[in-house]
Amino acid sequence: MAVFQRAYGRRTLLQHIRRARRIPRIELAEDTGISRATVTTITAEFLLGGLIEEVARDGSGSDARRGRPRVDLKIRGAARLVAGVKVSARSLSLVLLDFEGTKLGALETELTRSVFSPTDLAAVIRKAVSDLVQGAGRNQGEISGIGVGIAGVVRASSGFVHWSPSLSQRNVEFGAVLTDALGVPAFVDNDANLVAVAEQAFGLGQAHSDFIVVTIESGVGMGLVIGGGLYRGTRGCGAEFGHTKVHLDGALCRCGQRGCLEAYVGDYALLREALTIPGSDPATNPGEQIEALLTAAKTGDVTAKSIVDRAGRMFAMGLANLVNIFDPQLIILAGEQMQFDHLYAEAVIEEMRKSIVQIDKPPPEVVIHKWGNQMWAQGAAAYALDQVSEIALAELGDHAA
Amino acid sequence: MAVFQRAYGRRTLLQHIRRARRIPRIELAEDTGISRATVTTITAEFLLGGLIEEVARDGSGSDARRGRPRVDLKIRGAARLVAGVKVSARSLSLVLLDFEGTKLGALETELTRSVFSPTDLAAVIRKAVSDLVQGAGRNQGEISGIGVGIAGVVRASSGFVHWSPSLSQRNVEFGAVLTDALGVPAFVDNDANLVAVAEQAFGLGQAHSDFIVVTIESGVGMGLVIGGGLYRGTRGCGAEFGHTKVHLDGALCRCGQRGCLEAYVGDYALLREALTIPGSDPATNPGEQIEALLTAAKTGDVTAKSIVDRAGRMFAMGLANLVNIFDPQLIILAGEQMQFDHLYAEAVIEEMRKSIVQIDKPPPEVVIHKWGNQMWAQGAAAYALDQVSEIALAELGDHAA
Repeated sequence: MAVFQRAYGRRTLLQHIRRARRIPRIELAEDTGISRATVTTITAEFLLGGLIEEVARDGSGSDARRGRPRVDLKIRGAARLVAGVKVSARSLSLVLLDFEGTKLGALETELTRSVFSPTDLAAVIRKAVSDLVQGAGRNQGEISGIGVGIAGVVRASSGFVHWSPSLSQRNVEFGAVLTDALGVPAFVDNDANLVAVAEQAFGLGQAHSDFIVVTIESGVGMGLVIGGGLYRGTRGCGAEFGHTKVHLDGALCRCGQRGCLEAYVGDYALLREALTIPGSDPATNPGEQIEALLTAAKTGDVTAKSIVDRAGRMFAMGLANLVNIFDPQLIILAGEQMQFDHLYAEAVIEEMRKSIVQIDKPPPEVVIHKWGNQMWAQGAAAYALDQVSEIALAELGDHAA
Repeated sequence: MAVFQRAYGRRTLLQHIRRARRIPRIELAEDTGISRATVTTITAEFLLGGLIEEVARDGSGSDARRGRPRVDLKIRGAARLVAGVKVSARSLSLVLLDFEGTKLGALETELTRSVFSPTDLAAVIRKAVSDLVQGAGRNQGEISGIGVGIAGVVRASSGFVHWSPSLSQRNVEFGAVLTDALGVPAFVDNDANLVAVAEQAFGLGQAHSDFIVVTIESGVGMGLVIGGGLYRGTRGCGAEFGHTKVHLDGALCRCGQRGCLEAYVGDYALLREALTIPGSDPATNPGEQIEALLTAAKTGDVTAKSIVDRAGRMFAMGLANLVNIFDPQLIILAGEQMQFDHLYAEAVIEEMRKSIVQIDKPPPEVVIHKWGNQMWAQGAAAYALDQVSEIALAELGDHAA
């Protein structure tokens, strides 16, 4: 049990230093409730292991009583480097962070295909990471871990991908495939979960313990933060918001089932209806077709408006169901494509507010957070930082036990 | 922070003694990771405060090394008495527990109405508690707290009822009204939450950290246990499963909105459709009508079967949505009325299994737990035990601080 307590103390202190950025030892003890003696012992281990460093306190002279300079502790940025990778349908987004979370480099690269074999996707990621590292003037050997966010059903604890629209095979030990290909530990999670991690680490969720992130790309994703932690479900496949059913025996979904939310709000769902309009041309580029549909809806075309409005109302109904089940403090609608503006519309949020259980208290706050793929990659890197920190702490344990 | 640690230690140790039923001090220290010295100090406080007692260890002689008899610690049943009350549409169910959780008495009493003013309902509960206590040969003055489970939206932390089908007013400080009427602290929560508490404390949820309880009475309720604790939402109104929408602009619900799950599976929803059948008699007793409908469905009446089957399929769709969002280990369908057997049917569970995201792992276990109103009351009493324990620990703190 002493071993358990030591491990708990180390994790708590390292996290606290990371969050505080700079903090004196005495405040660490006060904030965490860990005794001063234990704080002294553990921070000495951290210093010895090179995970943290001492810096002169901003604007302070010396501690008159003790005659020693006042120092803060901070994470030592150079201790570890991590990369974060977001796999999208047509591109990879990468970011390189140091152990403090400072961004050292970023990279966007197009993909020639949207579906890969696991080894092919691992090779593409290895190449991109190599370019990222070189671009930042660093060495591949300096990387301690890689976080990868991918769409689909992922068991994060083992990096096992039950299925992903980016992979040609089901049931892949993709974490292991990546670790083999890259030569460093790779940590895989569902991409929407990593957006929730990013919102919590450095986004709109920083001040909240219970919030929902809904992501909209070509599919609809969700990340759940409950009690300050990411909720992943017991089989690693919760938070499948896009495949909750909004209509019994409803529209056919890409997943093969009927009535899923995605089958009403996904881009392919809008296209499917748009092609029903006489005069539409199936040979047109899908992106242009969607754009034409949204423009037609805005300029008053009745049929186009009917297609887009129903998507918005179905989305509102799905959001209302999340509120009725979770009663979160905050819902963050996260996405980057202007294409989905109709789902972020005030009319949609208002319809959601009308569809939740009515009590004499304000409904949860809904905020729209448009961000680029870089933010998704940063979520993946934040996850890698967590995992690499765990490894670093375990190594300390081996030496100091 | 030392105060915080002491409070944490006390709560942990009291809970652990309660769960273990009988346990020696040394095992308490080993199981909880709290130091032997602290265990000795805190258990001495508990003994002095009369919360626990020492009992000779079953079948043990004396500790040869120390020459002292081996003793276990256990909760002292006589330390506190609590009552649990479940408010149903037409009855009250009550149970009297001692501090160990032993049942000392139980009572069922019919209600003349289903809707009361807050003070009237408090008076009815006061009378029933008085009968319960007398029936058990105890004294009202011995009661330390009362737990009350009621349908509706309840903020448990303050006993505030946003609305309840049993109360004629919205926004009632019902915990305070009850405390005034009864002269002891009263703790109010949503009834389905208390079923989840009961399942966790002494039901099918004992071995699980993440499970969902769905209750079926005239409405549909839900209790969520996440990470070993009851999840109540941030405004106290999560887990409103019955009012999640299963159809856009669908059937009218008693709540005034359209398309709620309850508007398809509630008894009033079945009745509403049954009355559409030519020859049905609106003057018949509703219970008899429902029974006739279910019998007709079982014996092959096409229209009756269509009504009942759709209710089952809508219920399956709602359950599948819960699985897609939470991915729980276990779903407990809890209810007592045979009337809802059609919702517990294997065909319904199978439809749910087909409607969840398919991965190569078994779907969550679904168990049906039919129990009487007494179990609901026991959940309310278990909640009161928790709260009364908190008060007892706080009192210790006042004396020993």
